[in-house]
Amino acid sequence: MTDELSTDLPAFDLLDLEPVDGATTYRMPASTRLCTPFGFLYGGSGIAASAEASERATGRPLQWITTQFLGSPSPGDVIDLHVNVAVTGRASSQTQVSGTVDGALMFTSLSAHNVRPAGDETAFSTMPDVPAPLDCPDFAEPFHVDPPDSFFSTLERRVAAGTIRFDTPLGDGDVQPGLIAMWCRLVDSDIGSAATQAYVADLGPLAVCARLGRPLGGTSLDNTLRIVDPTPTDWVLLELDADGLHRSVGHSTVKIWSQDGRPLGIAQQSAILRTSHHQPPANA
Amino acid sequence: MTDELSTDLPAFDLLDLEPVDGATTYRMPASTRLCTPFGFLYGGSGIAASAEASERATGRPLQWITTQFLGSPSPGDVIDLHVNVAVTGRASSQTQVSGTVDGALMFTSLSAHNVRPAGDETAFSTMPDVPAPLDCPDFAEPFHVDPPDSFFSTLERRVAAGTIRFDTPLGDGDVQPGLIAMWCRLVDSDIGSAATQAYVADLGPLAVCARLGRPLGGTSLDNTLRIVDPTPTDWVLLELDADGLHRSVGHSTVKIWSQDGRPLGIAQQSAILRTSHHQPPANA
Repeated sequence: MTDELSTDLPAFDLLDLEPVDGATTYRMPASTRLCTPFGFLYGGSGIAASAEASERATGRPLQWITTQFLGSPSPGDVIDLHVNVAVTGRASSQTQVSGTVDGALMFTSLSAHNVRPAGDETAFSTMPDVPAPLDCPDFAEPFHVDPPDSFFSTLERRVAAGTIRFDTPLGDGDVQPGLIAMWCRLVDSDIGSAATQAYVADLGPLAVCARLGRPLGGTSLDNTLRIVDPTPTDWVLLELDADGLHRSVGHSTVKIWSQDGRPLGIAQQSAILRTSHHQPPANA
Repeated sequence: MTDELSTDLPAFDLLDLEPVDGATTYRMPASTRLCTPFGFLYGGSGIAASAEASERATGRPLQWITTQFLGSPSPGDVIDLHVNVAVTGRASSQTQVSGTVDGALMFTSLSAHNVRPAGDETAFSTMPDVPAPLDCPDFAEPFHVDPPDSFFSTLERRVAAGTIRFDTPLGDGDVQPGLIAMWCRLVDSDIGSAATQAYVADLGPLAVCARLGRPLGGTSLDNTLRIVDPTPTDWVLLELDADGLHRSVGHSTVKIWSQDGRPLGIAQQSAILRTSHHQPPANA
């Protein structure tokens, strides 16, 4: 690629993505740090890997990606990522990405990239006014696990607004009002690139659980990210919205803000909400 | 399929979708009424066809769909739709759909379906308070065409709130504030099914144009729909939000409400915004 941006695309080292066959095939070990404590790949890892593989294959920064989750790689699996560059235009590229383990499809992604001039970033809204990250309490998971290593250990999370607790269920028909927001920071990386935004934004179902006041776990059907500004930041504020529930499928939106109030991106996802989900694997 | 819902899935007659090879392959003529006045398939037609083909192939109602637009079928083309049912679980199905013309890929979709018990529909928000449809003015397009037939003639549109006009551009840095909303009605169909919601929700880029106060046209990269309640209604209110702009790509959200205030679904999309888009084709 001759785009001047092609050499500036950032890598998200946590993924440890390795090219294996020219520019369109990559491999990623499902390390325990990319998995949940429950013994399967964290959805944020799958969409992040797709985003980075697609950026490397096209040489162009990602503007939008949707990842559909079909299977659950286990810790120790090796994931093969293949990028089909379906459209290469003067300024835009569009791809489909498949993630497989031993030939079985685990996730598939659609994405768009372009190299048009930037500097037109517009948010149309402003970041909520919340306390600074270090003035907010740590996020306490609604379940008790003590994993030696999982994506939990890659991601510092602090509750900035709202009640993201599950010990006092709401009554039927009650909906917790008000803002729900969380500060996040990656232990070993800034956040801004498509891959890092995708990794931290996979928390939307928490908003549906919080609004319902029920200790539900979510199995993501998809994860979708749209980029507004990829300039890196340390902490990000995730503004979490519950959009709706139907047939046990909860829809949620996550607006991603830099610590100084820049809009970085907007994520949306649908997840099956379950009460049986947050158990450690039987052999734990 | 033995699901009791499998025989109750509604058809969107406008699409004229015809099964051609068992349950997984369909064909749709790109009739002028499914196209824009500018000589290409309306994005809402592509996502609607994917949604209906996927529902028919799985026998299960759709909960979420994302369609990626890669090419532009012309009026008169015949579109072949192939559904790959990748996952069939006890309650859930997940598919990928491809739409091709003479073997060339025009759009591809990812979707999820399930037959869990409904009755849990929750919106977490309320419909904006706007005048009734017939008390709102017709939507005037920001360009002048007189097509004999196009998707415009399938869709009645009335401006319920905000300024969706393009004759008075805003100054640099100005952003039009306030609610933007539009009533829509299909001439020959109720709205509620995934296909009909997808068809009417392809108007999000208007929100970005309205906020910027510029007469831009949009080329959709994707269209994404999440279902909250498919019970049919006559008029729907589209609550339009501009989510962000970057590298000329505008992101938008459309909340879909029934006339009596039920949340039907939420749509989101990214589109390249252009000033050169809204011209009739050269041979018009």
